[in-house]
Amino acid sequence: MAAPTRIDTAREIHPPRGSELSCKNWLIEAAYRMIQHNLDPEVAENPAELVVYGGIGRAARNWECFDAILKSLRELNEDETLLVQSGKPVGVFRTHADAPRVLIANSNLVPAWASWEHFHELDKKGLMMYGQMTAGSWIYIGSQGIVQGTYETFVEMGRQSYGGDLTGKWILTAGLGGMGGAQPLAASLAGACSLNIECQQSRIDFRLRTKYVDEQADDLDDALARIEKYTKAGEAKSIALLGNAAEILPELVKRGVKPDAVTDQTSAHDPVNGYLPLGWTVEEWFERRQSDPEGTRDAAKRSMKQHVEAMLAFHAQGIPTFDYGNNIRQMAKDEGCANAFDFPGFVPAYVRPLFCRGIGPFRWVALSGDPEDIYKTDQKVKELIPDDPHLHNWLDMAEQRISFQGLPSRICWVGLGQRHKLGLAFNEMVRNGELKAPVAIGRDHLDSGSVASPNRETEAMKDGSDAVSDWPLLNALLNTASGATWVSFHHGGGVGMGYSQHAGQVIVCDGSEAADKRLERVLWNDPGTGVMRHADAGYDEAIDCAKACGLKLPMV
Amino acid sequence: MAAPTRIDTAREIHPPRGSELSCKNWLIEAAYRMIQHNLDPEVAENPAELVVYGGIGRAARNWECFDAILKSLRELNEDETLLVQSGKPVGVFRTHADAPRVLIANSNLVPAWASWEHFHELDKKGLMMYGQMTAGSWIYIGSQGIVQGTYETFVEMGRQSYGGDLTGKWILTAGLGGMGGAQPLAASLAGACSLNIECQQSRIDFRLRTKYVDEQADDLDDALARIEKYTKAGEAKSIALLGNAAEILPELVKRGVKPDAVTDQTSAHDPVNGYLPLGWTVEEWFERRQSDPEGTRDAAKRSMKQHVEAMLAFHAQGIPTFDYGNNIRQMAKDEGCANAFDFPGFVPAYVRPLFCRGIGPFRWVALSGDPEDIYKTDQKVKELIPDDPHLHNWLDMAEQRISFQGLPSRICWVGLGQRHKLGLAFNEMVRNGELKAPVAIGRDHLDSGSVASPNRETEAMKDGSDAVSDWPLLNALLNTASGATWVSFHHGGGVGMGYSQHAGQVIVCDGSEAADKRLERVLWNDPGTGVMRHADAGYDEAIDCAKACGLKLPMV
Ligand SMILES: NC(=O)c1ccc[n+]([C@@H]2O[C@H](COP(=O)([O-])OP(=O)(O)OC[C@H]3O[C@@H](n4cnc5c(N)ncnc54)[C@H](O)[C@@H]3O)[C@@H](O)[C@H]2O)c1
Ligand SMILES: NC(=O)c1ccc[n+]([C@@H]2O[C@H](COP(=O)([O-])OP(=O)(O)OC[C@H]3O[C@@H](n4cnc5c(N)ncnc54)[C@H](O)[C@@H]3O)[C@@H](O)[C@H]2O)c1
Repeated sequence: MAAPTRIDTAREIHPPRGSELSCKNWLIEAAYRMIQHNLDPEVAENPAELVVYGGIGRAARNWECFDAILKSLRELNEDETLLVQSGKPVGVFRTHADAPRVLIANSNLVPAWASWEHFHELDKKGLMMYGQMTAGSWIYIGSQGIVQGTYETFVEMGRQSYGGDLTGKWILTAGLGGMGGAQPLAASLAGACSLNIECQQSRIDFRLRTKYVDEQADDLDDALARIEKYTKAGEAKSIALLGNAAEILPELVKRGVKPDAVTDQTSAHDPVNGYLPLGWTVEEWFERRQSDPEGTRDAAKRSMKQHVEAMLAFHAQGIPTFDYGNNIRQMAKDEGCANAFDFPGFVPAYVRPLFCRGIGPFRWVALSGDPEDIYKTDQKVKELIPDDPHLHNWLDMAEQRISFQGLPSRICWVGLGQRHKLGLAFNEMVRNGELKAPVAIGRDHLDSGSVASPNRETEAMKDGSDAVSDWPLLNALLNTASGATWVSFHHGGGVGMGYSQHAGQVIVCDGSEAADKRLERVLWNDPGTGVMRHADAGYDEAIDCAKACGLKLPMV
Repeated sequence: MAAPTRIDTAREIHPPRGSELSCKNWLIEAAYRMIQHNLDPEVAENPAELVVYGGIGRAARNWECFDAILKSLRELNEDETLLVQSGKPVGVFRTHADAPRVLIANSNLVPAWASWEHFHELDKKGLMMYGQMTAGSWIYIGSQGIVQGTYETFVEMGRQSYGGDLTGKWILTAGLGGMGGAQPLAASLAGACSLNIECQQSRIDFRLRTKYVDEQADDLDDALARIEKYTKAGEAKSIALLGNAAEILPELVKRGVKPDAVTDQTSAHDPVNGYLPLGWTVEEWFERRQSDPEGTRDAAKRSMKQHVEAMLAFHAQGIPTFDYGNNIRQMAKDEGCANAFDFPGFVPAYVRPLFCRGIGPFRWVALSGDPEDIYKTDQKVKELIPDDPHLHNWLDMAEQRISFQGLPSRICWVGLGQRHKLGLAFNEMVRNGELKAPVAIGRDHLDSGSVASPNRETEAMKDGSDAVSDWPLLNALLNTASGATWVSFHHGGGVGMGYSQHAGQVIVCDGSEAADKRLERVLWNDPGTGVMRHADAGYDEAIDCAKACGLKLPMV
């Protein structure tokens, strides 16, 4: 057998649009379109290598596997289920109409072998791929996801610390990379000004061009002056500042400047490549991380310690300060900063209260490819959830400020009791012809009941159950039993090999009554497992939500 | 809340028998009876502590959880699914009639935390339990399962090394616990003598009483004299010897004694609780594993190293020597025994050719409690598989030598293409009244497609995919999608925390036509994933079997 093809620069993938089927029904067609959507050049970071996002998160193991998946889907019968093992189609079995059409397991390794080293060995042998969260499970939707997640985080911070109003407040952060670049836009959408420190001019330029950041300051004094002006005026403007966070944060502490919130999204999790050491030029950094990776790592970690010490100083002044999932506290702690974990991670601080009510990154995609279908569903969401100005605000701003990538899609954070209502309404819109084609509803693996990740989503659980991964497994099994259209279970997403296990589901509104039943079950049960998991851990919000929603939790 | 009850010596559990239902249908009733069957004093090793077998393999987390599971099952509606998280009933959700009635996830931990230390911490906090393989998934059937598995293994060893005739040969082993106690009987059934070292007199007494072992020697010299006598006479007798294997094996090596095969079934996988350190009394061991678990673990692992070194010495003399799935090689390796893995595990040595055809530990239980129901199904198996003298021989010997424990049950190793036929036939027998009540069909987690365990079931896979656990996950998801009555996914069974991930399924023949359809799917798909997994790894037997059976494997 010839070696499998990992790179093919000649291929350009676009999902089919419109209402004509390539597969035997819309459930199967949805998977067929979504894997191609994930690899659309508008969506994927490196489509020639099948990489969707998140380092090396792939949609299929190699191009032969990709072709075989499409072929299998085109041939799949309506009562069959395709099994995908780390991006390779390995079997087709007869199940039934209410069973998932695709079942996916990506990057899962027996714990004692669950390291990057062993993964890369298997990956090189052609036996695996890295699925990340929504890359290998075919429900990535481009930047919109991270903008929304960051927005929700900022808004929740505002709720907790500023009575829900961030007008005239400003957020201090750093890092305008692939994910971090969403921060200034998210802050503006949340109503806050932001000062965004970034050491690479090219990164600032990109975000100015795409209007994710509003303006660039000349220097620190200029930046502070602009912040002063816009906060006074109550205008939610974002300011970029070229510089090193490890220098500027301590300087701000020294000057007694008081931001209203502090976080960071430099790539601290990767100290060799991700964090510019103090006093180094960017050119020097690029050269020395090649020629002297250990030295670079050590210098970066020393700088991170100073960075975190400044964050701790802000924290000590009562300013909301949080780790945004880049592991910078651990790095500082490694360097001897004993109290690095004094300020919290963003999940326990801001996202967990949402998770307690099953609220998480719900999203949907118009399989027609027609943006109008999304605008109509936006409208429907507002209609069905009339009393949530925050949600309406997000939808309005998303329409204005977020451009679609690949098949048009929308994300909004909704919870138990809302998700199934939206699903049923969308299905009705498909049935009565308001929408041009069916809609696929999914979510991130980072959700309320679907992930165990002790350094991120399940950090500092109330009962200490951070590492218990029974919960995402039950989520995957229940979604399968409830009739999701496809279900996935992955290892290592977000925080890397060994550190997380998580499940995904996608369910299709094809307009049928059978779909009504499945939607009602899946979109209730899926967030329901999140409420259950948090109620079991002892969170009052979750226990209350479970009671209010009538969940049957035998021992709560 | 009061502390949960882990020990209750006052409780004695027996499953209901007969044809009257406690639950709303037979699918639910099956789970209701089987969890109680697992804790019947005839079945469980330590029922007061809910321990079924395998060290601390439990059926429920504590007595409160046990009661709540029974209550949940009694109340469960026919379209609902109960979720069980490490032995605790955590939620009831609406699914549908063809979905599993129970979904179970036991002992699963995010890999970087997947150690006994972290497990015990969570276990102590009341957040987890150890599910082993069939303890927490309610399909343990007492010694019969392991007698059959061990018998198959010894027979295959005899075929490979002694032309299929073990007359006059003897097997050296240790451990007469819940599983290991099957060794002397299995050896006898396979035609060989055996010397069985066990450090607890109570365990020997139990096996003498139940006639699993024939006689006890006074000391090593006496044991060797008896072995000499019986091998000469060609009588397949089993001898127990009280002592510590870590002392006796090296002594045998020193004396130049040559057994015809060597293996071991002490509980090496659980170094705190499962292996008596050299030089310790049993009393001392019981005390110190409570007062000083780390010290006990370290002492046990040092002793295991000496034990394995003796096994290596036998191996070096050309004597068939194999690890019987207790992870003792890994423990020795941890202690610096670099070549511990020089002798193979029993799966690559003897079981894999069976797995390639989906053959594994198929079993069924008469929910009526009536032994006649099993005898009738035995007869049906012979009728449907007329051309397998080895299988007929097993069924005959099992009827004679194996007494039922708890609800009557039977095991026999059958594969893809046979399992669903038996299932459909049993269902027909329920339907037409030949059997007094429904039958539950299940299997061990140790099966063809259901486990990733690089030190045991997936050791030395042809393509190097030993540690890839996508496969058991797909098995669990597909069984759920196919309509098994309950499905389980566990971590750490057999070889301990960090070393395995595995799935189980049980499906009930209630005599209905709906059950026919589910049985046909589940009992085809379940072994089908085993053939698929081995075909994907490149085994010719599996590829041939897949072709012969018409499996759809897109890339094979
Ligand atoms: N919370 C979440 O949900 C979430 C999601 C995605 C990513 N992350 C984490 O956020 C971090 C950023 O992700 P990304 O995809 O944007 O990474 P990236 O590598 O694309 O961007 C990092 C940016 O930080 C800049 N930078 C590095 N050192 C700096 C310094 N000392 N001062 C100022 N700027 C500096 C770099 O120039 C780069 O532009 C990662 O650690 C990632 O793991 C968290
Ligand atoms: N191959 C398989 O299919 C398979 C199946 C089940 C169990 N196992 C493995 O086999 C092992 C035994 O299982 P079990 O259920 O019988 O466990 P168990 O704990 O019930 O029995 C182990 C026995 O070993 C004895 N023992 C411990 N240390 C000893 C020593 N140094 N010398 C002599 N005797 C000693 C104990 O007294 C006990 O009776 C476990 O590791 C289990 O994981 C393998």
